[in-house]
Amino acid sequence: MGLHRVVEPAGVLPQGAWRLDGSPEIAPNEVRIRVERLNLDAASFRQLWEKHGGDGDRVRAEVLEIVSTRGKMQNPVTGSGGMLIGTVDEAGQRSPLGLKAGERVATLVSLTLTPLVITDGLARWDGRSEQVPCDGYAILFARSIAAVLPADLHPELSLAVLDVCGAPALTARVVAGYVDQRRRVGDPRPVNVAVIGGAGKSGSLSLAAARRAGAGRTVGVVPVVAERDALVAAGLATEVALADARDPVALSVAVTTALGMPADVTVVCVDVPGCEHGAVLATEDGGTVIFFSMATSFAAAALGAEGLAADVTMLVGNGYVPGHAELALGLLRSEPGVRALFEARLTAD
Amino acid sequence: MGLHRVVEPAGVLPQGAWRLDGSPEIAPNEVRIRVERLNLDAASFRQLWEKHGGDGDRVRAEVLEIVSTRGKMQNPVTGSGGMLIGTVDEAGQRSPLGLKAGERVATLVSLTLTPLVITDGLARWDGRSEQVPCDGYAILFARSIAAVLPADLHPELSLAVLDVCGAPALTARVVAGYVDQRRRVGDPRPVNVAVIGGAGKSGSLSLAAARRAGAGRTVGVVPVVAERDALVAAGLATEVALADARDPVALSVAVTTALGMPADVTVVCVDVPGCEHGAVLATEDGGTVIFFSMATSFAAAALGAEGLAADVTMLVGNGYVPGHAELALGLLRSEPGVRALFEARLTAD
Repeated sequence: MGLHRVVEPAGVLPQGAWRLDGSPEIAPNEVRIRVERLNLDAASFRQLWEKHGGDGDRVRAEVLEIVSTRGKMQNPVTGSGGMLIGTVDEAGQRSPLGLKAGERVATLVSLTLTPLVITDGLARWDGRSEQVPCDGYAILFARSIAAVLPADLHPELSLAVLDVCGAPALTARVVAGYVDQRRRVGDPRPVNVAVIGGAGKSGSLSLAAARRAGAGRTVGVVPVVAERDALVAAGLATEVALADARDPVALSVAVTTALGMPADVTVVCVDVPGCEHGAVLATEDGGTVIFFSMATSFAAAALGAEGLAADVTMLVGNGYVPGHAELALGLLRSEPGVRALFEARLTAD
Repeated sequence: MGLHRVVEPAGVLPQGAWRLDGSPEIAPNEVRIRVERLNLDAASFRQLWEKHGGDGDRVRAEVLEIVSTRGKMQNPVTGSGGMLIGTVDEAGQRSPLGLKAGERVATLVSLTLTPLVITDGLARWDGRSEQVPCDGYAILFARSIAAVLPADLHPELSLAVLDVCGAPALTARVVAGYVDQRRRVGDPRPVNVAVIGGAGKSGSLSLAAARRAGAGRTVGVVPVVAERDALVAAGLATEVALADARDPVALSVAVTTALGMPADVTVVCVDVPGCEHGAVLATEDGGTVIFFSMATSFAAAALGAEGLAADVTMLVGNGYVPGHAELALGLLRSEPGVRALFEARLTAD
């Protein structure tokens, strides 16, 4: 778990620590990665971008400051990090991760708990994108997870998919659970799914995963016309609706109109605060809301559902589900609509 | 939903609003309550108490300031509120709540979305307890929930139970789900449950609810010897363990030692920040963590589970489950251990 890398405060796990020890010497169960690229969490990058008014130099300076102060990339406001790709430099003899020196990997655990040292001052990054070219090294623990990058996909594409691979995996599990349960009791109703932020990375994968898991009607909700057109072209949802997810009434009306009823499963994939109430209102009694956005407020979700007397199950989106990397990469390979959205996004970056 | 009571910002629901309209004139679907007593959320009171160094006068002044500024009692730091008891003053002709003037009721929706006006300056409150004697009025909406206070129980006792009645109801549902699922597949393993903060209000009710729902072994985790002794005497858990829930390793060792394995269901009922990682570590793969504490950090939970590669389901504790008030009051009546803990707590207050 990397407890020996925690500098302060003592006793917490690396993710909860203020500062980690970035010594390059590895313990026998650790792995050192030569870093090529960081992929900042969307909520984190957005916060930095807005704080600095779109000044890339100041964004870069703050990322450098965070990493040198904390020994890891964890945005102190959003609490979130991101992930990285690089090459295995040295694998300890007792590391259970099965990695070999020279393999190109992506880390599937958050940067918030990964000791990181940047050695090039981020000289190749303009501070204007979540994708950060970077020279330096990082340490993986025994319980970390890393995926060897597939040879058939561009590394940036793999990284973008692996960054959000927990979302389609958990969506698939929840939707399949409803499908199974209805089949068991002979309930013929289809399982309808709403994905808020359906044209984004985690959103498009979640739509594809919901369909694979047996969803009936699906609606992707997006905030702007360009995303609506892109999602319609991708063909991943039976319906596409335009709405501001921060407006609870507008969001619930959009979902209910598109599906003909509230959703059985609502998946929140937009990285802006204030979407909790709309997601609850858009969900049928007995349904489930899965919150993947790091901008989710626990209290707003809990009190919002209570205040609306809404009998919905609300899940904290866990980024780890067994088999998540394979499932997401499989969706990218087999769903042209997913691939088109990801490639357009990388080009725009 | 009370949208017409939102003063600012426009378009949000009352719980998300900065300020509500506390006009005493009711709409046809509203109810006006003459307030007797507020019950502040534990996390909110603790924050105010610590901020003001235990100075009751300053705590009282800040509560008055919050309510007069916002038109509701919502702690701006914790985001949480509490509930109230009072007497129905006037019920609109089209209110679906079924309340009649003169009935003594407790509101089961949060104060964070309840328009409230205090008229006595909280002159009868010393600022040193969550229970706040209060004169004033509050407004209930069509989708609010209120329970008529039972005649056989002291109102303070009912209020204390109703304040946390979502916790035992959701715990019972989750535990029963695991019990059913194992029975269906012929899995003979008992469903083991850990309740962090087992001697508190929501904790003791959750332990009793878990047992009723068919749990096997249960452990109540408490931070101090006095609570340990009280919980042992109450006889609500098969095991009682002492641990600081903010120390992830200590918490998981305590639970695993007590149960002989990690818990299938872990219920977090302590109102201090930083319990997310310990709760995840204390839970078996395939298990569920239910977070009831308003001090829960969404990001810490999501990233913590990912960082530990823990395949656990994490639930945002929804304060509303159908039948929750009846279930909790039933546990209070039928479980002497629950009643003893509640009465001791009210006496201490």
